[in-house]
Amino acid sequence: MLKNLDNLSLVIHGPNDLRLQQMPIKQHLGDNECLLQTHSCGFCGTDLHLMDDGRMADFVVKEPLVIGHETSARVIAVGKDVTNLKVGDRVAVEGAIPCQKCEYCRDGKYNLCPISNTQARGLPPKHGCLRRYYTHPSDFLFKLPDNVSWEEGAMCEPFACIVHACRRLNITAGQNVLVCGAGAMGMMAFLCAKAFGANKVFITDLNKSRLALANTLGVDKSYVIDPKNFNDYEMAQTIIKDMGCNPDVCIEATGNETSTSMAIYATKNGGKVGIVGLGGLKSTVPLVHTAMREIDLIGVCSYPLAISLIASGKVNLKPLVTHKFPVTEAIDALKFMKKNVEGSLKIMVQY
Amino acid sequence: MLKNLDNLSLVIHGPNDLRLQQMPIKQHLGDNECLLQTHSCGFCGTDLHLMDDGRMADFVVKEPLVIGHETSARVIAVGKDVTNLKVGDRVAVEGAIPCQKCEYCRDGKYNLCPISNTQARGLPPKHGCLRRYYTHPSDFLFKLPDNVSWEEGAMCEPFACIVHACRRLNITAGQNVLVCGAGAMGMMAFLCAKAFGANKVFITDLNKSRLALANTLGVDKSYVIDPKNFNDYEMAQTIIKDMGCNPDVCIEATGNETSTSMAIYATKNGGKVGIVGLGGLKSTVPLVHTAMREIDLIGVCSYPLAISLIASGKVNLKPLVTHKFPVTEAIDALKFMKKNVEGSLKIMVQY
Amino acid sequence: MLKNLDNLSLVIHGPNDLRLQQMPIKQHLGDNECLLQTHSCGFCGTDLHLMDDGRMADFVVKEPLVIGHETSARVIAVGKDVTNLKVGDRVAVEGAIPCQKCEYCRDGKYNLCPISNTQARGLPPKHGCLRRYYTHPSDFLFKLPDNVSWEEGAMCEPFACIVHACRRLNITAGQNVLVCGAGAMGMMAFLCAKAFGANKVFITDLNKSRLALANTLGVDKSYVIDPKNFNDYEMAQTIIKDMGCNPDVCIEATGNETSTSMAIYATKNGGKVGIVGLGGLKSTVPLVHTAMREIDLIGVCSYPLAISLIASGKVNLKPLVTHKFPVTEAIDALKFMKKNVEGSLKIMVQY
Amino acid sequence: MLKNLDNLSLVIHGPNDLRLQQMPIKQHLGDNECLLQTHSCGFCGTDLHLMDDGRMADFVVKEPLVIGHETSARVIAVGKDVTNLKVGDRVAVEGAIPCQKCEYCRDGKYNLCPISNTQARGLPPKHGCLRRYYTHPSDFLFKLPDNVSWEEGAMCEPFACIVHACRRLNITAGQNVLVCGAGAMGMMAFLCAKAFGANKVFITDLNKSRLALANTLGVDKSYVIDPKNFNDYEMAQTIIKDMGCNPDVCIEATGNETSTSMAIYATKNGGKVGIVGLGGLKSTVPLVHTAMREIDLIGVCSYPLAISLIASGKVNLKPLVTHKFPVTEAIDALKFMKKNVEGSLKIMVQY
Repeated sequence: MLKNLDNLSLVIHGPNDLRLQQMPIKQHLGDNECLLQTHSCGFCGTDLHLMDDGRMADFVVKEPLVIGHETSARVIAVGKDVTNLKVGDRVAVEGAIPCQKCEYCRDGKYNLCPISNTQARGLPPKHGCLRRYYTHPSDFLFKLPDNVSWEEGAMCEPFACIVHACRRLNITAGQNVLVCGAGAMGMMAFLCAKAFGANKVFITDLNKSRLALANTLGVDKSYVIDPKNFNDYEMAQTIIKDMGCNPDVCIEATGNETSTSMAIYATKNGGKVGIVGLGGLKSTVPLVHTAMREIDLIGVCSYPLAISLIASGKVNLKPLVTHKFPVTEAIDALKFMKKNVEGSLKIMVQY
Repeated sequence: MLKNLDNLSLVIHGPNDLRLQQMPIKQHLGDNECLLQTHSCGFCGTDLHLMDDGRMADFVVKEPLVIGHETSARVIAVGKDVTNLKVGDRVAVEGAIPCQKCEYCRDGKYNLCPISNTQARGLPPKHGCLRRYYTHPSDFLFKLPDNVSWEEGAMCEPFACIVHACRRLNITAGQNVLVCGAGAMGMMAFLCAKAFGANKVFITDLNKSRLALANTLGVDKSYVIDPKNFNDYEMAQTIIKDMGCNPDVCIEATGNETSTSMAIYATKNGGKVGIVGLGGLKSTVPLVHTAMREIDLIGVCSYPLAISLIASGKVNLKPLVTHKFPVTEAIDALKFMKKNVEGSLKIMVQY
Repeated sequence: MLKNLDNLSLVIHGPNDLRLQQMPIKQHLGDNECLLQTHSCGFCGTDLHLMDDGRMADFVVKEPLVIGHETSARVIAVGKDVTNLKVGDRVAVEGAIPCQKCEYCRDGKYNLCPISNTQARGLPPKHGCLRRYYTHPSDFLFKLPDNVSWEEGAMCEPFACIVHACRRLNITAGQNVLVCGAGAMGMMAFLCAKAFGANKVFITDLNKSRLALANTLGVDKSYVIDPKNFNDYEMAQTIIKDMGCNPDVCIEATGNETSTSMAIYATKNGGKVGIVGLGGLKSTVPLVHTAMREIDLIGVCSYPLAISLIASGKVNLKPLVTHKFPVTEAIDALKFMKKNVEGSLKIMVQY
Repeated sequence: MLKNLDNLSLVIHGPNDLRLQQMPIKQHLGDNECLLQTHSCGFCGTDLHLMDDGRMADFVVKEPLVIGHETSARVIAVGKDVTNLKVGDRVAVEGAIPCQKCEYCRDGKYNLCPISNTQARGLPPKHGCLRRYYTHPSDFLFKLPDNVSWEEGAMCEPFACIVHACRRLNITAGQNVLVCGAGAMGMMAFLCAKAFGANKVFITDLNKSRLALANTLGVDKSYVIDPKNFNDYEMAQTIIKDMGCNPDVCIEATGNETSTSMAIYATKNGGKVGIVGLGGLKSTVPLVHTAMREIDLIGVCSYPLAISLIASGKVNLKPLVTHKFPVTEAIDALKFMKKNVEGSLKIMVQY
C-alpha cells in the first residue's frame, strides 16, 4: 500500500532507551479500518514513566514499542466497509479499543472493558500513535468538526476522562468545586466544572506559572502548595474559610496522598471526591472521614471521546497547549516535559 | 413528676470508671416530649471505647455521663403537644437529634446534620439511654408494631445504618455481595443484602462462631481470616474464584485497613465498596484501584430509623441477640462484650 | 404591636370580586416568627384563576382572602427565638409552610408535604402576601444578599421550581433542550438550562414579543406557534431538523396537551420531558411513545428557595420583570396581566 | 448445509392469513453466526396483532413473514469465529439485533437503538423464530444454564423487559407496589418486584383465573376489575385504603388508559408509574397529577436478556406457562390465545 513512505516513529526499547526510527506500515487495510496520517500527539505522565522505567504499572516494554496515545490524524484511506468516515476527514483517535462483547461493553461502560487494556495504543503490547502512518478501526475514530483544531483533537482523549469525571461527580449549577493539581488534567477539570455550571472553582498546585494560567482562564482562587510545609488538614481549613463553605466536590488530579487527604478533609458532609490522578500502589488517607461524613471517593478512568463540548465553544482547551515540537524533536520534547519548567503545561509533537 | 422512683443508670466517670448509680429524673416534661421507661439497650463498640478510654474520637467524658444509645422503651407520659404517641406505646429511640434547620436536615440528610453530633445520646455531652427514666422529643421516637420485639426495637438504630448502606450502594436483585466482618453490623448487612434481593452473599471474620451463625442464617460462603497470614490481594483472588465473578458490591464492616484493601481488590470494575466500619485516623489502601477500575468508596454513617423491614418479617434480627443481662449486671455485660468470646454477638441490657 | 398602621391589602371575596382594603395586623408575634413589611409581589396564573373563578383547582375562596405568594419583604420585628434573621434584613418568602414531621419533610422532599398545601400563602384558607404587614415563621424566610434586587427576591419562588426541574431532569453540559412556552416559567427555564451548561436551547410560544425577548436573552432558536395550525407531530419534526438532533430534554411550561404531545414526539429515545405547566384534569398525549422510546415524563412542583444561582450572577432574572405597579393599582395590574399584551411578562406590585 | 431438512414454519401472509409451511434454510453460515434448532416459542400480543391485522403499529407485512420472537433453541452448528457457544448448547435468543455503533448502543442502551427495530425477529421485514432452523449472530444468543427449562428460556425476552422496568423504577426492599394487569407481563412484574425485595404487591385484572394464579404465587391482594363499572379515581382510593398507604410504584402492564389513570391517582407523591403496556396512539390521563404530585411516568421497552434471576431460583416463571402446543398446531395455539379463556396465561409452541 504505502511501502516506501517515510514513517518516522518514536519508539521505546527499554528504560532510558527512546529512539526516533522508521517503522513498517501495515500493508493490509481491514474492511473496517482507516489508514491514518498523524498530525498532533500530546504527551502525558504515562509517556514519562515509559521513558524512564520502560514500564507503566504492570505494562512492561518487552519489544520495541511506538508510544503516544493523545492524538489527532487525517484519514488517507478507508476500508471497504467503512461508512462513518471518508478520505480527508480529520479525526480524534480513541486509543483503547474495547471488545464490544463483554458485560462492560454491553452496559455502555467500555472504558472498563478488560480487553481494552490489552489493546490500548501506546501501552505494551500495542503500538501507539507517534508515527506518521498506521491503521485503526473506524468505529474508534471520531470526526473533528472544522472549528476544532488539531491540538484540541489530540486533547480529546484526556478531556473525555475529565468530562466523564464531572458527570460521575454530578457537578451542576451552583456547586463549589476544589481542583487539586493544575497540570493538564486539573486545568481541564477546572474548565469543565465551569462549563457544567459550577459556581466557585478553586485550584491548587506546586507550580506558580500554572496557577497564573489558571487565574488568567478564570479560576476563582488558586493556592501555591509548598511541599515542605504542606499540612493537609490545615490547608483544607484555609480553603473552606476562603470559599465560605466546604466544596461540594473535589477533583483530585495529582495522585499525591497528602493532596488526596486534603481533598477528603475539605469536602462537605455528603460530598464527593473524584479520584482522577494515579498515585502509588497504596495511599494513606483518612478513610474514616468517608464513613463518618458520608464522603464518596469516586474513581474515574478513561472514557469514550466526546467532542461536542469543545466544538460548541463551551470549553476552550487551546490555551493549555504551551509548547509544540516537530516530530524530529520528539525525544527532546519528552525530556523537556520531564523538567516541568515554569510556563509549560501540555506539550505536543506534530508531523 | 417522678421524684422518688428508682432510676438506676450506667454512668461513665472517666477511663475505666464505670458505675451503676441513681440519676435524677428531669421533672419538667416539655410540650413535645415523652417520658420514657427503658426496656432494652444494646452495646456497641462506642460503649467499649468510652469504658476503656473515657472518650470516643473527639468526644471526651468531662462530666459523669449515662451511656447507651441502641434502645427501646415504653412511653409513660406525653407532653401536651404530642400527637404521634400515647402512654403505653412501645418505641425505638432515635438517639441523635438533628436541628431540623440546616441545609442537611432540609435536604433529608439529617444523619449529616452537624448539630446532631452534639446532641447524640450516649456521647458527651448528652446523657444516653441506660437509665430507667428519661425524656425525649416525640418526633424522634418511633412506635414499634406489636410484632417487633423489644430487642429488635433496640437494634433499630444500628440496623437503620445498614439499610441506608444497602440503599446508597444500590444493592439490587441478582447482585453478588461480599461482607467484610461478621459482627453485629456485618451480620445485619448480610441479612439486609439478602432482603434487597442479592444473589450470593459471602462473609469474612476472624471469629469462627460468628461465621457458624452466619452459615445458619443462610450466608452463601464464609471465610475465617487468620490475621497473622492475611494477604489482602490473595484473599480477594480466592473469593473471586469461589464466587465465579467479582462481587458487585462489598460492605466493609471492620474498619481494618487490610480488610478494606481486600474489599477494593475484590470488587468488580465499576463496583462499590461501602465504608461502614470505622478505622484509625488514616488508612493505607490501594486508592489507585479506585481510579483505574472506577471503584467507588461510599461512606455510610448513621441514619433515621426504619422499622418496616423488621416488621414485615423480611429481615429477622432476633438470632443476633446472643446474650441478655439485667441492668444490675450492666457493667459485667460490657466487660463480657469486650472479651469477644466465641458465640457472642449482640449483647443487651434489660430493665 | 402595630395597631394603627396602614395595611392596604389585595383581597379576593369571590369570583370577579377583588378589593383593595385594610386588613388587621396580627398583634402577637410568635417566638419563631418575623413581622414583615412587603416590598414586591409578582403575579402568576394562580392569581388570575382566583380573580376570575374565586377558586384554583380544589382551593375555593370561602372567606375574604389576601392573595399573592411571590414576594420579597423587609423584616421589621423578630420573635424572641429567631436567630437566623434580624430587623432590617431583606428576605424572600417561602409561601408554602411544610409540617417538618411527615415522611416527605423528613426525606428532604418538603415540596411534597400534604400539609404545605393547606398552609400555602395566597391559596385558601391561608392569607397571601399582598398586604403591607404580616408575620411568617423565620425558618421559611431566606435572607437576600445585597446584590439580589427586590424583584429578583420576589421571583425566587417560581425560580426555585425551575431550578428543581433542571435538577430532576439532570440537565447538564452539552445537552440540547426544548422549552415549550415563553411565559415567566418558560423563560426562567431557558435561562436556567443555560446556567446548567445546556448546549442549544430552543423555545416555543404563541406570543411574538416574548420570543423576541428570549432571542435577546440568548435563546438559540425560537418558534411562533399558530394555535390554529398547530400539528404536534410535524412541529416536532421541524424542531428536530433545525436542532440537528432530538432534544435530550424538553421542559413543558404551558400545560397545553398539544404542546405536551409535541414535546413527547420531539424528545430523543431515552430522554425526559419535564411537566412544569399545569393543564386540565386529564390530557390526551401519546403515552405509547413513552414506553416504546423510553421517554420519562417527570413531574415538577414547587420547591424550597435557592437564591445562590441568582446571587452568583449565573442567572439574570431582572429582564423578565416588564411592568411594575404601585399597590394602589394592584387590581389594574392583575387585569393588565390577564390581557396578556405584547411585551408583558412578569408583572409586579410594589409597596 | 441442510437442504432437505423439514423446516416447518408459522408464516403470516397478510391479515387473517396465517399458514404452516416449509421455509428454505439459509445455506451459508456466517463466521459469527450459529445455526439454531428451535425448541420453544411463546406468543405475545404482537403476534395477535400480526395475525388479525397483518401489521403491528407501523410494521406492515408485505412479504410472507415467519413470526415468533420469544424463543429458546439448541445450537447445531457454529461459524468459524464463534467462541462463546458450541454445538449442543441450549440458548435464549435475543431477537432484536442492535447496530453496536450508534450512540445508544455505545451508551449501553441498545434497546433504544433505532436499527434494532428494523432487524427484530418476528416483525417485518425480519423473519421470526417459529421455524425449525435458522441462523443468528452468536453475540445475541445467551447460553441457558442446565437448571433453566426450555420454557423459561423462551420467556427470557419478555422477562428481561420486566427486570429492566424494576431497575428503572428503582424497586427496592420495603416498597409497596401496584401491578396493573395480570397477563404474562403483569405476572412477571409481580414476581420480579418480590425478588427485588418489595413489601406488599397488589395486582388488578379483568380475569378471575389469572388473579387466582397470582394469589397462588403469593401476591398480597388482587382486584377483579369490572370494565363496565371501572372508575379510575375510586378504584385508586380503594387500593390505597387496603394497602394502608399509596403504592410507591405502579407497573402499568395493560396499556389501557383508565388503568393508567388509576395508577397515576394511586401512586404516592414523588412516586413512579412504569409504562410497560402499549396503548393506542394517544391516551387520556391526568397528567396534571404528575406535575402537582411529582409522579414520574417511566417508559420501558425491551431489554437485553438477563438469565441470572431465573437461574438463581429467585424468580420462578414455570407456573406462568399454562398451555403448550406442538408446532403442527401453532395456528390453533394462536387462535386459542386470542380467546383469552379462563386459566390461560403464557401459551407456548414447541418443536
